[in-house]
Amino acid sequence: MRVRKIFLIGLGAGDPDHLTLQAAKAIGRTDVFFLLDDGEPRASLADLRERIVRGYSKPSRRTVAGRSPADSQAAERMLAEHLKEDETGSFLVWGDPTLYDLSPAILEEVLARGTVEFEYEVIPGISSVSALAAKHRVPLNRFQVMTGRQLAEGWPEGVDELVVLHDEQQAFAAHPDADIFWGAYVGTPDEILRSGRVSEVAGDIAKTRADARTEHGWILDTYLLRRPRAH
Amino acid sequence: MRVRKIFLIGLGAGDPDHLTLQAAKAIGRTDVFFLLDDGEPRASLADLRERIVRGYSKPSRRTVAGRSPADSQAAERMLAEHLKEDETGSFLVWGDPTLYDLSPAILEEVLARGTVEFEYEVIPGISSVSALAAKHRVPLNRFQVMTGRQLAEGWPEGVDELVVLHDEQQAFAAHPDADIFWGAYVGTPDEILRSGRVSEVAGDIAKTRADARTEHGWILDTYLLRRPRAH
Repeated sequence: MRVRKIFLIGLGAGDPDHLTLQAAKAIGRTDVFFLLDDGEPRASLADLRERIVRGYSKPSRRTVAGRSPADSQAAERMLAEHLKEDETGSFLVWGDPTLYDLSPAILEEVLARGTVEFEYEVIPGISSVSALAAKHRVPLNRFQVMTGRQLAEGWPEGVDELVVLHDEQQAFAAHPDADIFWGAYVGTPDEILRSGRVSEVAGDIAKTRADARTEHGWILDTYLLRRPRAH
Repeated sequence: MRVRKIFLIGLGAGDPDHLTLQAAKAIGRTDVFFLLDDGEPRASLADLRERIVRGYSKPSRRTVAGRSPADSQAAERMLAEHLKEDETGSFLVWGDPTLYDLSPAILEEVLARGTVEFEYEVIPGISSVSALAAKHRVPLNRFQVMTGRQLAEGWPEGVDELVVLHDEQQAFAAHPDADIFWGAYVGTPDEILRSGRVSEVAGDIAKTRADARTEHGWILDTYLLRRPRAH
C-alpha cells in the first residue's frame, strides 16, 4: 500500500543552528517542500528557509511556494496536486510546530475529510519561548503562554511568569512593576534584546520595536513578563 | 584576559536526534564536561548522554561525573577545581535548560559571589513539552506549565490547556471530563503514549506508569490536559 507521508518540521526560532538532527534527516527524506507564508514580506526568513532546504535536501526534491492554505479544502487541493501517493512532503515551520501554529489542526481536518490519505509526523523545534529564555538566561517555572490580546484582558490569577506572543499593542505597559525580558528576531543576526523593570524600559522597547519594524518591514517579537516576587 | 566559559546545553527530551547543530558545536568546543545527576539511577539516560559526548566532543576533553551541586558554594568549588581559567566547561541538561532546571539559577548565584569568574551561555533544547505535543500532534495555544502539586491545588482560572510536569500524585484524576495526552520516556526507545478522556484512561495510565517505574527503576512523564471545549 502506498500512502503519502507528511512531515511538519520545526526549524527553530530563527538561528540556522537551532536545526535538530531529526529535522535535518526529515528534510533529507523529503520529495516535496511546501514553502508557505502568510503574505508578510519576511525576506530574511524566507532566504534562511531556502538555505536550509538547499543544505540538507536531496537533489531531486521539488518545492512548492505560495500562501499557506486558508482552510483544509485548500490544503487538500495542494496536497493532491503536488504530492504523489508514494512521496513524502514537508511543511517547514519556524519555531515549534505545535506552538501557536495552524498546521497540525489543518492537517487533522484534511485527514478527517478522508479524500487525500496520508500519514503525518511532527518534528519538534526550538520554540521562540526556549530561544528567548536561553538568550536572557531566565529560568521558567510555573508560567503561562498567551497572546498580547489575552494579556490586555488582565494578568491571570495564580501565575507569576508569562510568555507573551503576538503582542501588537504592547500590553506589558499596563504592568509597570513587572520585569520584562524582551526579544525581537531572536537567534538571527538582527536579534535585539532588552530587559528590566517595565516602568523603566517600556518606552525604549516601544521605540526600538517601532524603529526595527520600519527598518525590516516586519517584526517578530516575544517577551517574558515576571511579577515582582513578594519579600 | 582569560576567562572561563560555560555552556549550559539542552540535549533535548531523550531522543539523540533532538540534538541541535548549536548544541553539537558547543559540545565540540568543550574542554570539560560536568556529567551530573540528582542521584536517581537512570542508566539509559546516562548512557545516552555519554554517547552524545563521545560522538561530538574533541579527543582531549575531560569529564567530571558526580552529583549535581546542591548549592552555589558546591558549584563554585567544582568549577574552581576542574576548570582552568582559559577553558570551556559544559553542563549537559535533558530537555531545555531554562525549563524547570536549577542550573541557570545556581550559575547566577556563583557569578554573584564573585570568586570564580566566567562567562556563560544557554543553548536551548527541545523541551519535554515540545516533544510530547509533537508525538501527540496536539497544537498548543494559551496554556500553562505547572507541576502536579500545583494542579492538585486546582485548575487555574482562564486557561483551558495545561502542561503538567513532575506529577507524582496523578493530579489529573480530579478532572474526569478533561482530555489527557500523556507520555513517559518520550523520544526514547521506551516511549509510552496514552490519550483520551481522563475518566476513560486514568486507570490505564496509573497502572502503566506504576508498571513502567517498576520495570525501569525510574520514570519521567509529562502530560497535556485540555478542558473540554464549550459547544
